[in-house]
Amino acid sequence: MTDISMIRAAAERLAGHARRTPLLNSPFLDEIAGRPVWIKPECLQHTGSFKYRGGRSAVSALDPETRAKGVIAFSSGNHAQGVARAAQEFGVPAVIIMPMDAPKLKVANTRAMGAEVVLYDRAGGESREDIGDTLRRERGLTLIRPYDEPQVIAGQGTTGLEIAEQARAEGIDAADVLVCCGGGGLTSGIALALEAEAPGLRARPCEPEAFDDVARSLRHGRIESNPPGAGGLCDAVLTPQPGDITFPIMKRLCGPGMVVSDDEALRAMALAFQRLKLVAEPGGAVALAAALFHGAEIDAPAVICTISGGNVDHDIFERALETLAE
Amino acid sequence: MTDISMIRAAAERLAGHARRTPLLNSPFLDEIAGRPVWIKPECLQHTGSFKYRGGRSAVSALDPETRAKGVIAFSSGNHAQGVARAAQEFGVPAVIIMPMDAPKLKVANTRAMGAEVVLYDRAGGESREDIGDTLRRERGLTLIRPYDEPQVIAGQGTTGLEIAEQARAEGIDAADVLVCCGGGGLTSGIALALEAEAPGLRARPCEPEAFDDVARSLRHGRIESNPPGAGGLCDAVLTPQPGDITFPIMKRLCGPGMVVSDDEALRAMALAFQRLKLVAEPGGAVALAAALFHGAEIDAPAVICTISGGNVDHDIFERALETLAE
Repeated sequence: MTDISMIRAAAERLAGHARRTPLLNSPFLDEIAGRPVWIKPECLQHTGSFKYRGGRSAVSALDPETRAKGVIAFSSGNHAQGVARAAQEFGVPAVIIMPMDAPKLKVANTRAMGAEVVLYDRAGGESREDIGDTLRRERGLTLIRPYDEPQVIAGQGTTGLEIAEQARAEGIDAADVLVCCGGGGLTSGIALALEAEAPGLRARPCEPEAFDDVARSLRHGRIESNPPGAGGLCDAVLTPQPGDITFPIMKRLCGPGMVVSDDEALRAMALAFQRLKLVAEPGGAVALAAALFHGAEIDAPAVICTISGGNVDHDIFERALETLAE
Repeated sequence: MTDISMIRAAAERLAGHARRTPLLNSPFLDEIAGRPVWIKPECLQHTGSFKYRGGRSAVSALDPETRAKGVIAFSSGNHAQGVARAAQEFGVPAVIIMPMDAPKLKVANTRAMGAEVVLYDRAGGESREDIGDTLRRERGLTLIRPYDEPQVIAGQGTTGLEIAEQARAEGIDAADVLVCCGGGGLTSGIALALEAEAPGLRARPCEPEAFDDVARSLRHGRIESNPPGAGGLCDAVLTPQPGDITFPIMKRLCGPGMVVSDDEALRAMALAFQRLKLVAEPGGAVALAAALFHGAEIDAPAVICTISGGNVDHDIFERALETLAE
């Protein structure tokens, strides 16, 4: 189980590799939100999302002999790139199983980072688990899960250590920390770091409508799933349910979940463009959208929001910018 | 005259106010450029451009009695916002003379920062100098020039102190530092800082076509102007000629100027979006464009580029993104 000592150890392994992203703000956003809004822009992290932290943490935690045989991951996007880059840095093989209909750019980027990409036919019913199991056995690869993996959670938690330190430097001693949430790796990691380092700061998961499994699970005290078949713009955070490891941590430490619409995520992307000069992807903008457009659900005097990633195609970004013309 | 001790003093006055922007990179940009490319993203600075450094430096250098009467500046954009924010922080009046046809957003932002905006009819032949002189005399305001002003150059030079320190931390001991250049305030400030702190790094001004006054002036050893009447996308760097104070500094310290097309600036903006998750304005992307598309003019083993600002309207940004679809 991930605990604060694992997060601190991950921070040591990540030092000099992961970027320490800044803490930003804008008076214009404060005005919209009605309270000070601080931004932790993990879109500026290597590979364009916080997933590099977890990937590097997990790969660096393997014993050298195991690591040398290589790693394998399932992902259509950010986790793929995070694991691929970490493996490339260690000079070990990475196999990433991606759906055939994954965005071409994400496939190309993952290949460019030296990974072997194996495409599977999601629609045709091919099982990525079967493909992965076979490859894993044949080559002795280690599976790096995207969130329900203690060393991945520890890596994402280093974001929380930085937030705690930066909040202290800015004199923020009470705030809700709004976290873009899929399976809960980033949220639970940040929650553990804040528990130890900044007890006045409380993590709250933020999700898109129709993928509010974490909010509902927290409300009802048990893991709930999303109805199958839903889709949406926020591809980075569309997970079926909270993780078995991440949920108990969130249940113990997090405040209530917040839920935003795809349109609110697009408007938050546009404001990040205009006021912060940052590129956010839809799933990476849900926490900022919650801060800006759901202030009535927040009691804390200030908020800190992750922008968890910026890997967005230009046509979706243009849709976001169009909200500025309205 | 600005010297390194003035830059160091400005850095002390800016500490805790100006942001220390990070130094970023991307393997994808290295590949395009054929050498390591590092980015100093001043678009992440307060007000969205490096101009806040010069504004805060100049306003903070005034004696309190003079400062209390207020400051005045001429600007259609970034300098306006930099001075307005600095004045607001000190609680002193700022009057900004802006052309009637300045972008509405820049006028609105400047007003939102508490400045009194006086619009003049550029096309109708009104003289902003006459308007400014009258206001200055009547109210005892101090004029803050956009670049030919020692304390402004000192403020911009703090960017160079950070570059020198960050380059050392990354082990970069020889590089061309490509700087987006209008009147030369940022370029000359960085050049002075590098001379003192990083002698293996050399500043080079980068300009858009038809506004290559600094490149030509450096080549011919004397101040040359741009032909009147030219226009272009790179509004932040469209100045008529190098400054009387900035030019001698650039002549003594800078390498040859580089010149890029508006189309190259747009393509660099698109790559900053895709690979760095940063919003650059056209004039703020000319240095990155030079690094990516004019590598044959560079002998240095590595380059460091400023992205000097990100205050761009969404329609121009969409034009930049369209270059990704080609």
